[in-house]
Amino acid sequence: MSHWLHWIDLLGVAVFAISGTLMAYRKHMDGFGVIVLASVTAIGGGTLRDMILDLPVFWVQQPDFLYAILIAAMVTIFWLRITHKFPYQTLLVADALGIAFFNIMGMQKALDQGTGAFIAIVMGTMTGVFGGLIRDVICREIPLVLKGELYATTCIVGGILYVSALALGISDLPAMALGMLATLLLRLGAIRWHWQLPVFQGSH
Amino acid sequence: MSHWLHWIDLLGVAVFAISGTLMAYRKHMDGFGVIVLASVTAIGGGTLRDMILDLPVFWVQQPDFLYAILIAAMVTIFWLRITHKFPYQTLLVADALGIAFFNIMGMQKALDQGTGAFIAIVMGTMTGVFGGLIRDVICREIPLVLKGELYATTCIVGGILYVSALALGISDLPAMALGMLATLLLRLGAIRWHWQLPVFQGSH
Amino acid sequence: MSHWLHWIDLLGVAVFAISGTLMAYRKHMDGFGVIVLASVTAIGGGTLRDMILDLPVFWVQQPDFLYAILIAAMVTIFWLRITHKFPYQTLLVADALGIAFFNIMGMQKALDQGTGAFIAIVMGTMTGVFGGLIRDVICREIPLVLKGELYATTCIVGGILYVSALALGISDLPAMALGMLATLLLRLGAIRWHWQLPVFQGSH
Repeated sequence: MSHWLHWIDLLGVAVFAISGTLMAYRKHMDGFGVIVLASVTAIGGGTLRDMILDLPVFWVQQPDFLYAILIAAMVTIFWLRITHKFPYQTLLVADALGIAFFNIMGMQKALDQGTGAFIAIVMGTMTGVFGGLIRDVICREIPLVLKGELYATTCIVGGILYVSALALGISDLPAMALGMLATLLLRLGAIRWHWQLPVFQGSH
Repeated sequence: MSHWLHWIDLLGVAVFAISGTLMAYRKHMDGFGVIVLASVTAIGGGTLRDMILDLPVFWVQQPDFLYAILIAAMVTIFWLRITHKFPYQTLLVADALGIAFFNIMGMQKALDQGTGAFIAIVMGTMTGVFGGLIRDVICREIPLVLKGELYATTCIVGGILYVSALALGISDLPAMALGMLATLLLRLGAIRWHWQLPVFQGSH
Repeated sequence: MSHWLHWIDLLGVAVFAISGTLMAYRKHMDGFGVIVLASVTAIGGGTLRDMILDLPVFWVQQPDFLYAILIAAMVTIFWLRITHKFPYQTLLVADALGIAFFNIMGMQKALDQGTGAFIAIVMGTMTGVFGGLIRDVICREIPLVLKGELYATTCIVGGILYVSALALGISDLPAMALGMLATLLLRLGAIRWHWQLPVFQGSH
């Protein structure tokens, strides 16, 4: 992985750590609860991906991912203590950036392991959304990712574009950039215009 | 694995996927939530088993398991949209078939890895019930498998019969058939006559 | 691992199994629910640690850990049925002993795998607290470990003392004893004098 990609990877982890810290703030958790929720959100998806692909878990090899989580959580707490409010719009944009990057990086890891395109898309989506799902389960929320809003679908569409580009003979870096850009723009559009998937109107 | 066993395996996965889709329907989830719940229910137990036994995760090798989940979920949604009701009795029977098969297949995988009979029974039961447990945790239900009804116990009894048959020198296929049949009949009996394990009457 | 350490390890597992059994009792679970909750609490942290470090999962190799869980759960159920009350103070002390041991044993496993001190502390804390976290998630409680009381922090402090002692050239067994003793005493102090970490006073 090039130096440049590693820094964006760290940024993605930090952004998800902020989202976990925010949830901990809402749930009145203590200092350790903040760290656990921030970590689970930031590295839960990638940890599951690496365990399923039988790869070394990425943050065991590179502890700077955990340092990024600690710094992001502490800065967020500090900010919340001072301002008592949070820049949600900025977070949503940063979160979209994180999803876009995690999705395509997760897919590349899977393809490197020799999986087919379909499994790679599953792995990318899992990397992008699983951390947030565990965060919500721990906090006894019905996971956001399972409710209406266009979230995981953006990963799937971005992933299909990425593998389609590879299949058309486009080289890896431009294909990754295309997949990330598509995931990012679709997610930003879903946030801006409240795009939704149809939700079951079934009875209990 | 023979062709015949693989098809029953796919059937078991599809049946559990239907049960996850039904839960998503009750919880008013969207299209992606349906896929996640269906997948977690269908392959959660086997994924954990393979990770604990340090085997390649089965569906990474064979994506047709995921196709079976997608098809089962879509057919179920289509059916629910049209009829607004669901054939619960048929599902319970199919679910019992799935448990019986997952239980004994999980045990065989463990025994192949050289575990003892006790660990194999644990692995079989885990394969049979863990997916449903995660499904219920994600949906904020107290897991059905932990409440009263005879569910996991059928896996344990079927598993004991399977390893006992092997210990008596019966060859693998008839021993597996015996274990599956016992699990299936015990589960069907539990559904039909509401057999229960004693539940704690303790105070809060 | 020496024979002596193995027995304390079994004791730690048994103590956590008792805590899971108690939770199942409060939640009116059946016999199998008791076994699942007891097992998840007792071996959940160590299982995750071994999967992340890519080690063989410890209880697959040594089924006596599962026997210890079964015996602890059955004795606890028997006790609850006869007395209808539980010696909470004794349990808290035993639980503190379990945490102290799991924490340092988890760290040693990580260090043996060649991880740095920071990752080792993360692994130790995970081993000590993750089982209880999964137990609470399954039972739809906000995990105790994330709420106010000084719990995980004792693992971190004990862990820092252990790696500091190693860095100062102290040999492994005395360093481990120091780390365990620090974890134990800090946890007992937190129980006795209700030491707490600051909890967020944020609004919903």
